[in-house]
Amino acid sequence: MTVSAFPKPVAVVLLSGGMDSCVTAAIAARDHDLALLHLSYGQRTEARERRAFEAIALHFRATRTLQARLDHLRAIGGSALTDPSRDAVQARRPGSAIPDTYVPFRNTQFLAVAVSWAEVLGARRVFIGAVEEDSSGYPDCRREYYDAFNRLVRAGTRPETDIAVVTPLIRMSKAEIVREGARLGAPFHLTWSCYTDEETACGRCESCLLRLKGFRGAGVPDPIPYRG
Amino acid sequence: MTVSAFPKPVAVVLLSGGMDSCVTAAIAARDHDLALLHLSYGQRTEARERRAFEAIALHFRATRTLQARLDHLRAIGGSALTDPSRDAVQARRPGSAIPDTYVPFRNTQFLAVAVSWAEVLGARRVFIGAVEEDSSGYPDCRREYYDAFNRLVRAGTRPETDIAVVTPLIRMSKAEIVREGARLGAPFHLTWSCYTDEETACGRCESCLLRLKGFRGAGVPDPIPYRG
Repeated sequence: MTVSAFPKPVAVVLLSGGMDSCVTAAIAARDHDLALLHLSYGQRTEARERRAFEAIALHFRATRTLQARLDHLRAIGGSALTDPSRDAVQARRPGSAIPDTYVPFRNTQFLAVAVSWAEVLGARRVFIGAVEEDSSGYPDCRREYYDAFNRLVRAGTRPETDIAVVTPLIRMSKAEIVREGARLGAPFHLTWSCYTDEETACGRCESCLLRLKGFRGAGVPDPIPYRG
Repeated sequence: MTVSAFPKPVAVVLLSGGMDSCVTAAIAARDHDLALLHLSYGQRTEARERRAFEAIALHFRATRTLQARLDHLRAIGGSALTDPSRDAVQARRPGSAIPDTYVPFRNTQFLAVAVSWAEVLGARRVFIGAVEEDSSGYPDCRREYYDAFNRLVRAGTRPETDIAVVTPLIRMSKAEIVREGARLGAPFHLTWSCYTDEETACGRCESCLLRLKGFRGAGVPDPIPYRG
């Protein structure tokens, strides 16, 4: 650990506890003190995610953490991630470009919390591990969306505020993300990507499949166990 | 009440319980079935606001209501509205263009919830009673902000979604809002604008002063009682 008389600037990092946000935190940690934000919203895996979040926050010695609840997302419904009657493992409807696990306008809610916190902390960067190319086709994971969000931040915060949302993974494939995480020593063993809420990952849901493909493509062993 | 074989389209209306959102609901109700949304976020007046919200929802026979909590806004702080140690009545710091009651990036959090709900309901309109000209200088009450937000909605929702946030009051003065509300029979007697959480409004905080000025300017008596 480098000792410096000059404290690093603070960055807010959205950390779900998955591999993408973990690598994003590792990237942010090079030049920032971390303020780590987790959102629970009635998703099936929220307890498991929070355990991953807390372990990763300890790993990075985050100076601030905030765990917020957006319980209305469950009341609003409309997603296999928050509706127990839908199947999150087989969630892509035939002919639909956007899987059932899409939570309508969710990332805007997440980013709005992050920007509110950043404005109060005086942080100038909000990191989010969105991935365009290799993602599931969610509209709020595309670069165009983040460009629009940054214009909104400029229009909707105090004039003296200068906050930008940054998406260091947006152009990367899952394999590139794994390689970058491995290079930076990201604690993949503490992460949780699976859409189910068990002790071990299912290895079958869309999120597990993307993750496994990424590790395979990078030639890096995935350190977490999988069921059967 | 007009009886029609064709149901009206659904609109989501952000209804704090204040006079602006009440008039906005009255405007929306002419052509829409109302889905009314209230947000509690640890603001001093949340219990009083919710009573106003429920009374106004009954008045408009809203077909759907949603009361959501954003408790992290209190944890994040940074505003006289959510920090009990700050004074909400005398909240403008000398030389500051933006009063202490500004809650950082709050309206983005509110609108994000509204758009998530609208996307699931299939509503194509989200109404918010933002007022630019006569407001307190909040950055997220300006037209430029709503233009940016609508671009974000187009970028961040399913391609088949067509949701627009509309701000029918944005160019009005408080007096014009009172006149429009009176013309539409908006239930002003059920509204609550005061920044304090008492049985009767203080008549001294910035919100009461703007409200009273509006009623005076419109030549309409304000039907709610004020303290001493």
